[in-house]
Amino acid sequence: MKSFIQVLPNSHFPIQNLPFGIFSTQQNPSPRVGVAIGDQILDLTVISTLFENHVPELKNPSNVFSQSSLNSFMSLGKPIWQATRRFLQNILSDDNPELRDNNQLRQKAFVTQKLANMHLPAQIGDYTDFYASKEHATNVGTMFRGKDNALMPNWVHLPVGYHGRSSSIVVSGTDIVRPCGQRLSAKDQPPIFGPSNKLDFELEMAFFIGSGNKLGERIPIDQTNNHIFGLVLMNDWSARDIQAWEYLPLGPFLGKNFGTTISPWIVTLDALEPFLVNGPIQDPVPLPYLKDDNPSAYDIQLEVKMKPNNSDSFRTLTKSNLKYMYWSLKQQLAHHTINGCNMRPGDLCGTGTISGPSEDSRGSLLEITWNGQNEVNEIKRKFIEDGDEIVLTGYCQGDGYLVGFGECLGRILPAVNHKNQS
Amino acid sequence: MKSFIQVLPNSHFPIQNLPFGIFSTQQNPSPRVGVAIGDQILDLTVISTLFENHVPELKNPSNVFSQSSLNSFMSLGKPIWQATRRFLQNILSDDNPELRDNNQLRQKAFVTQKLANMHLPAQIGDYTDFYASKEHATNVGTMFRGKDNALMPNWVHLPVGYHGRSSSIVVSGTDIVRPCGQRLSAKDQPPIFGPSNKLDFELEMAFFIGSGNKLGERIPIDQTNNHIFGLVLMNDWSARDIQAWEYLPLGPFLGKNFGTTISPWIVTLDALEPFLVNGPIQDPVPLPYLKDDNPSAYDIQLEVKMKPNNSDSFRTLTKSNLKYMYWSLKQQLAHHTINGCNMRPGDLCGTGTISGPSEDSRGSLLEITWNGQNEVNEIKRKFIEDGDEIVLTGYCQGDGYLVGFGECLGRILPAVNHKNQS
Ligand SMILES: [Ca+2]
Ligand SMILES: [Ca+2]
Ligand SMILES: [Mg+2]
Ligand SMILES: [Mg+2]
Ligand code: NI
Repeated sequence: MKSFIQVLPNSHFPIQNLPFGIFSTQQNPSPRVGVAIGDQILDLTVISTLFENHVPELKNPSNVFSQSSLNSFMSLGKPIWQATRRFLQNILSDDNPELRDNNQLRQKAFVTQKLANMHLPAQIGDYTDFYASKEHATNVGTMFRGKDNALMPNWVHLPVGYHGRSSSIVVSGTDIVRPCGQRLSAKDQPPIFGPSNKLDFELEMAFFIGSGNKLGERIPIDQTNNHIFGLVLMNDWSARDIQAWEYLPLGPFLGKNFGTTISPWIVTLDALEPFLVNGPIQDPVPLPYLKDDNPSAYDIQLEVKMKPNNSDSFRTLTKSNLKYMYWSLKQQLAHHTINGCNMRPGDLCGTGTISGPSEDSRGSLLEITWNGQNEVNEIKRKFIEDGDEIVLTGYCQGDGYLVGFGECLGRILPAVNHKNQS
Repeated sequence: MKSFIQVLPNSHFPIQNLPFGIFSTQQNPSPRVGVAIGDQILDLTVISTLFENHVPELKNPSNVFSQSSLNSFMSLGKPIWQATRRFLQNILSDDNPELRDNNQLRQKAFVTQKLANMHLPAQIGDYTDFYASKEHATNVGTMFRGKDNALMPNWVHLPVGYHGRSSSIVVSGTDIVRPCGQRLSAKDQPPIFGPSNKLDFELEMAFFIGSGNKLGERIPIDQTNNHIFGLVLMNDWSARDIQAWEYLPLGPFLGKNFGTTISPWIVTLDALEPFLVNGPIQDPVPLPYLKDDNPSAYDIQLEVKMKPNNSDSFRTLTKSNLKYMYWSLKQQLAHHTINGCNMRPGDLCGTGTISGPSEDSRGSLLEITWNGQNEVNEIKRKFIEDGDEIVLTGYCQGDGYLVGFGECLGRILPAVNHKNQS
């Protein structure tokens, strides 16, 4: 399969991928639906008459694709997503002349990615974050509770999750202001107030709900993949000092909700299907509602790099892989709805930090520097400093092509000074 | 102040109140904005031309009031809310003939509450729940960690809060399905799966954000009241067995997110201002960003009643008061945004369970029956059974009138049986 649009071998966006996103341009500042191909974006609003002819089951394509979020398209359900994908692969194929040889339409239909602004791909109603990597939970647990009590007894029986803040989820490229808050400066002393000095990233991926379920109903594990639209990269910025002081007994709050960054292109489950592999063996065997004998981990190679404030280049901090994750996306969604909790199109579920088995696959500075005990040598960092940039990337290695996620980038701005308030 | 609409002495909705809600009727099924007065609803879409004449600063009232949520009105800001309230008190006053004597308009403008369907008053983007009653936190902490470790060290320094699920917030009158999930049946045994058998209510109130703040900015404590639109009653249904097993270390999740019920009428801060009183003395003195020397507790009398499945009448379970709450609404909002977390119109913040100092003012069955050790005698309940109804009510006692919240009602339906899944 090959497109008439040029796709370089190291591009994340060949015809095998075709991720969905929301973009705008200077000429047309209305955010709308596009699909990435090579270094271009195919503007779906421009080819909506082609959809009318070739995908009649998709009603009113010009309305669906001119929305400023993908929620409307997501709500149409998996058969429509798949028909759309098949049609797009067809119309972009180098042996199909319909769009290829229509010069006038091609001129209008393609936008260079560098000239586009990317927006949040969906209006996110609720955002959940899981804690599904055993290595991450073990590392953090060992640090704070010792090796023998690292994992809570519930951890091997269910994918632990909690609710995050949807308002502060931003798209890649958005600056993040260093948060202020309460933290302990010494044991048994009252807390002090000021900018966090343990600012961290978390290497995560996240899945978007496409079609939801009604309150009081559930999504059985063998139907979960019909409800998941696709995946993005996610950096769950975390202020470790604020978090450590506030989180007992009800979980993370201000240590997390000052900002969460996601990559702009949603890679569909269909594009990821060739990269399904077996996940870690689960022992003890999960309860029946979580049991799943099919390969349901994804082999997605992940990397985090930092560009320190005094440097021009990015240095690798860690390399990991989504396949290390203990609880699968399917298990996360089946668990989330087992009590009747309702999902809506556009809801987002993060996997939790994805750490691997080796020291160089740890998914946060908390783990890499062991809570600041060590320093990342080349860049002299225990945590993130003002002006530092963090970028997450990820891709699947196909046979002669990549299915990639692009990047998830964010830079830290200095804390806001409010003398009369602190 | 008196309205030409009859208001009985025990009505929650005299002219001093005028809460905002979203309603629809059989004749006009479009949800729209109304204001409660006596046993009537004033349909603001019908009197939008009066707004054009008398409240010119409110642009396009017919559009704002025909929305299916209050978000649009909320986003206009406090000066507009106040101008609207002043105008409504004026136009409803018994000495103002403009609406009183316009029989044709009156016919169309008023709807009997009993004939209306109430909807969620806002589209809730994010929902936060605090834990701001010292008595509640102490009771729960004593039960699970013993008297000496009842309160975590952070509790007296900040209003502890966590994120809840917005998708499952429903309006009073909506049935709630008993959730299923994992729970421990015996210590050191693997968890079992099934319907919760420790289903509980939580007596809470909640405030709606009217106008928000940008990501990275904060709302200083002396400005918080400009951002709070008003209050509702809230029942934060809780499955104690699911919660106990899942909540470490990241907080409540499936034990809470199967449903949360709020009352339909939002009582504005302006209507509540006459009932401001001093809250509990705060020792230690909070950090400067939380310090507030003005009376900022509200004297709101609260009551929870149960109608058991085998009974025709409601029995009182507890009586409490919002004024017992340790951390004020202002402190909650100032804390929530101190790290730059952004609020949006329609976001909801619950206070946490409001327990008082005496045994008959405990705000949950967990506390009332001390985790099922005792029974509520007259009704033979440790927790909630299928078919039981719970109603929360609340009001302020004015001089010859009440400013009330109506009721927040919910009934529990049996768990859904999915034999092949459990
Ligand atoms: Ca996380
Ligand atoms: Ca609660
Ligand atoms: Mg975050
Ligand atoms: Mg709830
Ligand atoms: Ni939310």
